[in-house]
Amino acid sequence: MDLLDKKFLLAPGPVPVPPRALLAMAKPVIHHRLPEFSAVLQKIRADLKYLFQTQEDVLFFASSGTGAMEACVANLFSPGEKVIVIRGGKFGERWGELAETYSLNPIYIDVPWGEAVKVEEVENTLKTHPDAAGLLIQAHETSTGVKHPVEEIASLTRERETLLVVDAISALGVYPLPFDELGIDAMVAGSQKSLALPPGLSFVALSARAKEKAQKTTSPRYYFDFRKELKALNKETTAFTPAVSLLYGLSEVLSRIREVGLETLFAHYRRLSGACRAGVMALGLELFAKTPCEALTIVKVPQGVDGAKLMKLMREKYKVTMAGGQAKLKGKVVRIAHLGYQNELDVILALATLEMALTELGYKVKLGAGVSVAQEYFFG
Amino acid sequence: MDLLDKKFLLAPGPVPVPPRALLAMAKPVIHHRLPEFSAVLQKIRADLKYLFQTQEDVLFFASSGTGAMEACVANLFSPGEKVIVIRGGKFGERWGELAETYSLNPIYIDVPWGEAVKVEEVENTLKTHPDAAGLLIQAHETSTGVKHPVEEIASLTRERETLLVVDAISALGVYPLPFDELGIDAMVAGSQKSLALPPGLSFVALSARAKEKAQKTTSPRYYFDFRKELKALNKETTAFTPAVSLLYGLSEVLSRIREVGLETLFAHYRRLSGACRAGVMALGLELFAKTPCEALTIVKVPQGVDGAKLMKLMREKYKVTMAGGQAKLKGKVVRIAHLGYQNELDVILALATLEMALTELGYKVKLGAGVSVAQEYFFG
Repeated sequence: MDLLDKKFLLAPGPVPVPPRALLAMAKPVIHHRLPEFSAVLQKIRADLKYLFQTQEDVLFFASSGTGAMEACVANLFSPGEKVIVIRGGKFGERWGELAETYSLNPIYIDVPWGEAVKVEEVENTLKTHPDAAGLLIQAHETSTGVKHPVEEIASLTRERETLLVVDAISALGVYPLPFDELGIDAMVAGSQKSLALPPGLSFVALSARAKEKAQKTTSPRYYFDFRKELKALNKETTAFTPAVSLLYGLSEVLSRIREVGLETLFAHYRRLSGACRAGVMALGLELFAKTPCEALTIVKVPQGVDGAKLMKLMREKYKVTMAGGQAKLKGKVVRIAHLGYQNELDVILALATLEMALTELGYKVKLGAGVSVAQEYFFG
Repeated sequence: MDLLDKKFLLAPGPVPVPPRALLAMAKPVIHHRLPEFSAVLQKIRADLKYLFQTQEDVLFFASSGTGAMEACVANLFSPGEKVIVIRGGKFGERWGELAETYSLNPIYIDVPWGEAVKVEEVENTLKTHPDAAGLLIQAHETSTGVKHPVEEIASLTRERETLLVVDAISALGVYPLPFDELGIDAMVAGSQKSLALPPGLSFVALSARAKEKAQKTTSPRYYFDFRKELKALNKETTAFTPAVSLLYGLSEVLSRIREVGLETLFAHYRRLSGACRAGVMALGLELFAKTPCEALTIVKVPQGVDGAKLMKLMREKYKVTMAGGQAKLKGKVVRIAHLGYQNELDVILALATLEMALTELGYKVKLGAGVSVAQEYFFG
């Protein structure tokens, strides 16, 4: 029996939620069809445009991020249509599974886990398949920590008929992905990442041509039907019952983001991830991603250390929950997320915990060596 | 404008409150004269006996700790009565101010700040003043971090007519002070220390002879009248309106303490303070207290460093609130508390912050040097 049971959540979702959002979500639930709630929805919709850096509509659903991924596949493509799928991790695989579920014709670009897709390879594939109706990609792969070159790829798709669909579930609000400027067609996000809310809300921003396409596709969909949501949006409501409390939390968080500005948010994640990477390398450990994103730092479990034991020790003794590897990376990496209500001292805490746990498992690291480099990074 | 405004509270009260207590305090307020609430009171009273290690009654008030100190002075002594006051810090001074306010005749034992009172000096004073009605002391001085030899002093008073009144406001639940076993006559505590609750509740345990004495004294008191509270206690209620929500929180916290056991609580504080002291010394810094308590670690601000600037930097840049020095120690010490909802990683966070802030102010410490010693302490 632990006295305090004080837990530290450093996983790439769910994430720690700030008290201001918890308090907002504790407000009395009101009926979702009241004018009072429509006002909340209108405010959120305006704020979401700011967050997605778009003039277009941003839809939201009571669902996890996967729901919004499915919505993109079901709404934007018809059975038999060709889609290029960038597959370099668990979430790339998910795009593929969704495409297959909806009987699309996926053309896979398989990328070694830990590496980013090459722009030339994407360009060649687009040339080989000029009839590709879509290109499905992650802004970064949360399973590998790799950032894909979305900006460059967008410059290829926006001159073509191919719709660019970006899973930015753990990327939105972490680094710039200006929706309109890049000419992305659909971009998916979730509440339990940079927005620092509990899981349960997903988002999709849609370009004009994506909205148009959604009117013509024939895949079956009901709850996730963009047409229904776009119609409801024009009536200042939602097609189905929205997650009222989570939306209160969202409104609070979005207000804060508008107050501080997007650049502050991006600088925050650059700072946290920069310090964490420096700390990890100072310990002589290896980063998994060749082109790492700022949302999380993925560390290779060093030789001779049992990855599962390491995670268990950190979780049970130190109450620190990081994420382990997924699928073929199971037991091979530790994923330290910087998402949500986390600041500089949480990075120090993560490094200190990793140092202690590795030492305890017999792997030699210099205690405090990662911490001290992160400290220098922060006040430097 | 700070993005997260994520604050860390490492002061010796108020302290971080565990979510389970916050949730309990968010329960609907019920009327305090209902049988349902009497049941809560009875449960709390039984649990408080466990915490104070006593079979005697423990009273509580809606007040800060000072209220309960005043209650002891007003209830246990009459104007003109002689009381010995151990004065080795701000809270010893408070005993003196209270004694003077109630026109008692205080005999001061002045102790250099940072040192504990000598048992022989107490014994000599007791011999010189066999008519002393009371001896007022702190279990430890929260302003200096010094633990006084309460156990030895209790062995002197319990054979005399002198009532031993112990301010254990930040000591109760931190290290053993078995009320009955030591033969203490009155012991004061507060909610915002080891109990990890918000401020607003104070406690007084009373020996049989203290209760008896309270029936005979002539000092004026109304709200803090022990006689009224003892009468109300027998009717399973309180004399005045109790702080209902705080008592819900208290009930929750006391249940937890009974589940884990007092020894777990004491071991927790030994561990946190032991690691913190080791870390501080590894940085080449000096501890202020010669006989330090386990509730907080007091560090001398090193020469050449502006203590006020140091506190401000930690508070504003790192969002870490430790306490500075009080009265004559203003600007001269940093007080790092281990009280409340804090665990091992909070000690690491405190040391890391201190290291960074000192470095930033131009004082040379090896970054990570204090942290690494604390890390070793924890997994050793």
